[in-house]
Amino acid sequence: MIKKFIICIDLGGTNLKVALLDLNYRIKDREILSTRSFMEKDDLILGIVHSVTRFIKYNNLSKAQILGVGLGLPGPTDAQRGIVHFFPNIPGWKEVALRDILKNKLGLKVCLDNDAKLMALAEHKLGAAKGYRNVLCMTLGTGIGGGVILNNKLYRGFNNAAGEIGHLPINEKAGAPCNCGSFGCLEAYVGNKRIIQEAKRVFKRAVTLEELSRLALKHNRLAIDIWRKTGKHLGFALAGVVNLLNLDVIVIGGGVAGAGNVLFESIKQSLIRQAMGVQAKHVRLFKAKLGNEAGLIGAAIMVKEGL
Amino acid sequence: MIKKFIICIDLGGTNLKVALLDLNYRIKDREILSTRSFMEKDDLILGIVHSVTRFIKYNNLSKAQILGVGLGLPGPTDAQRGIVHFFPNIPGWKEVALRDILKNKLGLKVCLDNDAKLMALAEHKLGAAKGYRNVLCMTLGTGIGGGVILNNKLYRGFNNAAGEIGHLPINEKAGAPCNCGSFGCLEAYVGNKRIIQEAKRVFKRAVTLEELSRLALKHNRLAIDIWRKTGKHLGFALAGVVNLLNLDVIVIGGGVAGAGNVLFESIKQSLIRQAMGVQAKHVRLFKAKLGNEAGLIGAAIMVKEGL
Repeated sequence: MIKKFIICIDLGGTNLKVALLDLNYRIKDREILSTRSFMEKDDLILGIVHSVTRFIKYNNLSKAQILGVGLGLPGPTDAQRGIVHFFPNIPGWKEVALRDILKNKLGLKVCLDNDAKLMALAEHKLGAAKGYRNVLCMTLGTGIGGGVILNNKLYRGFNNAAGEIGHLPINEKAGAPCNCGSFGCLEAYVGNKRIIQEAKRVFKRAVTLEELSRLALKHNRLAIDIWRKTGKHLGFALAGVVNLLNLDVIVIGGGVAGAGNVLFESIKQSLIRQAMGVQAKHVRLFKAKLGNEAGLIGAAIMVKEGL
Repeated sequence: MIKKFIICIDLGGTNLKVALLDLNYRIKDREILSTRSFMEKDDLILGIVHSVTRFIKYNNLSKAQILGVGLGLPGPTDAQRGIVHFFPNIPGWKEVALRDILKNKLGLKVCLDNDAKLMALAEHKLGAAKGYRNVLCMTLGTGIGGGVILNNKLYRGFNNAAGEIGHLPINEKAGAPCNCGSFGCLEAYVGNKRIIQEAKRVFKRAVTLEELSRLALKHNRLAIDIWRKTGKHLGFALAGVVNLLNLDVIVIGGGVAGAGNVLFESIKQSLIRQAMGVQAKHVRLFKAKLGNEAGLIGAAIMVKEGL
């Protein structure tokens, strides 16, 4: 029997990651390209095609050895019909039938889905939420992504748009304006931009998220306070989700999660204070385990298991 | 073949309803007792036993014709093990193995679950949400109950405690205190007591919910404003649920839903303003169809379908 592989693509606003994985989801080869080096939609599609072709060639593989190509995408998609609705951070994409375009150009099976959903698949199968039945996975970055696993299956909702935990509103009165056009959403309080803004206000100079995490580790009160406030907002919103879904586990990943204990402890406190007894007692809060590879691994799971 | 029936009990803080249903969920006989006439837990259990026995006798049935007894209960339960955790509005119940107690006394199959979950089952199978896949059912009363149907199945969560939409927090800053011991929850803004309080403040006299609905129907501005505010809170909270679960339908029942159009229009407006485009466009808002019978019908569905 010939050995089979999966080629996965994790497209972000900054990087385009491509990787070759075996059927045990181990990464055998990878490359990282700059998303911005592709000026137009068609360039980006061609970039993906060339990258996949190179991977097959330089790893001495035949097309028959490729089980499929899986794509994790930074925006709302119709996974069933293989369509990209749009990308909030990459211009020029609107209702693109990306799956069929790539299938025709590559002659391979192609699957695609939203990256937060693939992260949830990966963390549930192989990461922090392995063995748990009802899970919310969230990534904290410029935007806040989410994926929900219920009864051990990825829950999609009608338009494959479930999981938008960033747009759970938490402040009816004088809610901060959010990127989604609405106001008072969680993302408006804990998105990267808001945290960096707050740090700039407090420190009176530009501070990156990484520096803010380092400062907190060194017991800087101002930095600790910013992370505590962030955790408080998160715990408040998550309490609602926990009351509604009686979850087993919440997994948090993404750049902001790098703040570590100070953030996680604050989320926990706020969540326990706000949620109902039974639900709060049961739920566990974990840091994501698969890091930057979650999207690639989730895409491979989607291809192999046909989810 | 002998004709089979199901006996269902809907226990509320005020009434204990008992009914005989056929396997098409039609109610053939019923009685309503006063919950408060039973002073103690054991009296109430005995009252249920006597009522079930009477129903069998006076309808000339044999025990072999009773498929089972289904109970809808006003508090958190462990449906799988048949245990009542407690009732917020009926004192004296704590971790009661009600299913086994009744099974032993009656010699019949007994199933029990939380009443909001049974309402969701009933509205999904036979009521307003018939034919829809992903549904939130909520009852607006003194407390706010909820049941979630996802992918056509009742979603329970780990402790059978999912669906607590009343305890979705909506105001981080200066949130109103809630019965659950926390603050800022939806229930603290739209529970019966709060609405009646607000009406008393505005009208400077006691006003019932029914009168408030009538006044709004007669275009009383003050009454209309109270319902509009109530709807605004509800829409804001529901937007979060719709963003998270990309639902097909929200069904609203219970006493407060009696306010009708003025309330529903306000919920819709607020929901559409707050929720994300794709999710808001898809979701429908319906008034519950089965009214006071939803609990009994849901209990019969549970017995027949073994949910």
